[in-house]
Amino acid sequence: MMENPSATASEALAQSVVAVMYANDAFSQWLGVELLEIRPHYAKLKMTVRDEMTNGFGVCHGGVTFSFADSALAFASNTAGKVTVSVENSITYPTRVMSGDVLCCVAEPLAIGRKLSTFQAHITRADGTLVGHFKGTVYHTEKEHQGLADTTT
Amino acid sequence: MMENPSATASEALAQSVVAVMYANDAFSQWLGVELLEIRPHYAKLKMTVRDEMTNGFGVCHGGVTFSFADSALAFASNTAGKVTVSVENSITYPTRVMSGDVLCCVAEPLAIGRKLSTFQAHITRADGTLVGHFKGTVYHTEKEHQGLADTTT
Amino acid sequence: MMENPSATASEALAQSVVAVMYANDAFSQWLGVELLEIRPHYAKLKMTVRDEMTNGFGVCHGGVTFSFADSALAFASNTAGKVTVSVENSITYPTRVMSGDVLCCVAEPLAIGRKLSTFQAHITRADGTLVGHFKGTVYHTEKEHQGLADTTT
Amino acid sequence: MMENPSATASEALAQSVVAVMYANDAFSQWLGVELLEIRPHYAKLKMTVRDEMTNGFGVCHGGVTFSFADSALAFASNTAGKVTVSVENSITYPTRVMSGDVLCCVAEPLAIGRKLSTFQAHITRADGTLVGHFKGTVYHTEKEHQGLADTTT
Repeated sequence: MMENPSATASEALAQSVVAVMYANDAFSQWLGVELLEIRPHYAKLKMTVRDEMTNGFGVCHGGVTFSFADSALAFASNTAGKVTVSVENSITYPTRVMSGDVLCCVAEPLAIGRKLSTFQAHITRADGTLVGHFKGTVYHTEKEHQGLADTTT
Repeated sequence: MMENPSATASEALAQSVVAVMYANDAFSQWLGVELLEIRPHYAKLKMTVRDEMTNGFGVCHGGVTFSFADSALAFASNTAGKVTVSVENSITYPTRVMSGDVLCCVAEPLAIGRKLSTFQAHITRADGTLVGHFKGTVYHTEKEHQGLADTTT
Repeated sequence: MMENPSATASEALAQSVVAVMYANDAFSQWLGVELLEIRPHYAKLKMTVRDEMTNGFGVCHGGVTFSFADSALAFASNTAGKVTVSVENSITYPTRVMSGDVLCCVAEPLAIGRKLSTFQAHITRADGTLVGHFKGTVYHTEKEHQGLADTTT
Repeated sequence: MMENPSATASEALAQSVVAVMYANDAFSQWLGVELLEIRPHYAKLKMTVRDEMTNGFGVCHGGVTFSFADSALAFASNTAGKVTVSVENSITYPTRVMSGDVLCCVAEPLAIGRKLSTFQAHITRADGTLVGHFKGTVYHTEKEHQGLADTTT
């Protein structure tokens, strides 16, 4: 799915960075996160809510919805190749999510800076209803991502 | 631990509500959340970060820290007996958390209203370092918590 | 500018509510806020930054940019006719604003609920650069706006 | 009021930085902000709400309360001598503020970092009621504050 022969260098870098991050991201794997589309400053993910992700009201724990968006933010904000970390995140939950719901999350930039960038993520149910709106500010360190597949050949 | 013969009615209600919520909260149980202290508008929790909670950088996924605080918010904000739901949450991460770290979270009110209340939660490591500061605004519905143990005898 | 003979009832209500709010809003007037477009759940405003709005660094005080967006939120969120108040707001400043800059702000809904709604506002400079991204959660009271011009004839 | 013969060097630096910032801060002066106490990473301010600061409901515009806290954040976060700018701010309004109310704001750190720090500010009325809770994340640039009075003699 990630393969794209005509990918530009920046697209190849984005996909390589996220592939390595995802392979090491135990919690995103526990969540069942799937990568649908990765491009520079952009990530589209999918997951299905399971019973073990519900809270005391029998609905999806807010932390699960947040975590899903936070993974999307981490992927989208690291695509340029600098190790990038979260500074401040916020989330609003317009509608509750139930076990069995299939969620999609798209993270995309509001503003890209040299040191600090801001992204938003929309989390939707299969019927298109917005179930979470997430905003995240990140800090781009000077450190380059390591251990990437060679993307220059 | 929750037993306290001299508990006032409001303390008994707080503990009864949270005991039922916690018993049904599959995700908080997966996180390994322990209830250290529950009082009206207050929750103190503990958890230990496990390898499966780490992200692509080998550190605790931000969503796990958030989820821990979100559980504390849910417990603290439901103690008065009305079903209460999150509206808007934000978190800042001053320091990263590693697998094996033992975290403590205290949620307490900034302001209690009839319909809307605001809580903050401080998440600290065993050495006292602040690793997360969480703020949550909640909406108190008119619905009473059901299925509580009889706390009036 | 607000006149629109073919306006539907909901558009007429939106414009009537905001006209009355604006007429009484001393601080928005001090800011020099102009109403460019008002529709149900939507407000587009304009203002010009003046020297007296700058801070200790000679750039526009963050509170001014916030206030501009907060006015847009207040107008957009009251258009349905119920008195609506802010619960929680956040703002990010991707780029600094200088005295003399002409700002535009568009507030629009992320999710509309019966009691609680969430809006975002984008604040841009004349060159289209995003200088602020604002998110606001509001509470719709049961109280109807009073003193509106008769919009039913 | 700012004079304190026994001030340590860091306290003298804090007061000198803020004195210069305040002298140039046209908007804080328009707000009528008074500096009650300035120390490293700490600012305590006072202001009185005037009629021209009210909104369409005849209560203090949320942007004014925010601006007051934002000034406190700016002062508190610049006290260490590096030019420091706001990244992301949020505010919650537990209680409304009226014209004539005398407000106090205390900004203090939640976590101090080398590049990024987080502060909170509590805004209270004269009767002690919390009317705003503000959180701000700031970025410390490498640039030193200039034009300070000589604080070393």
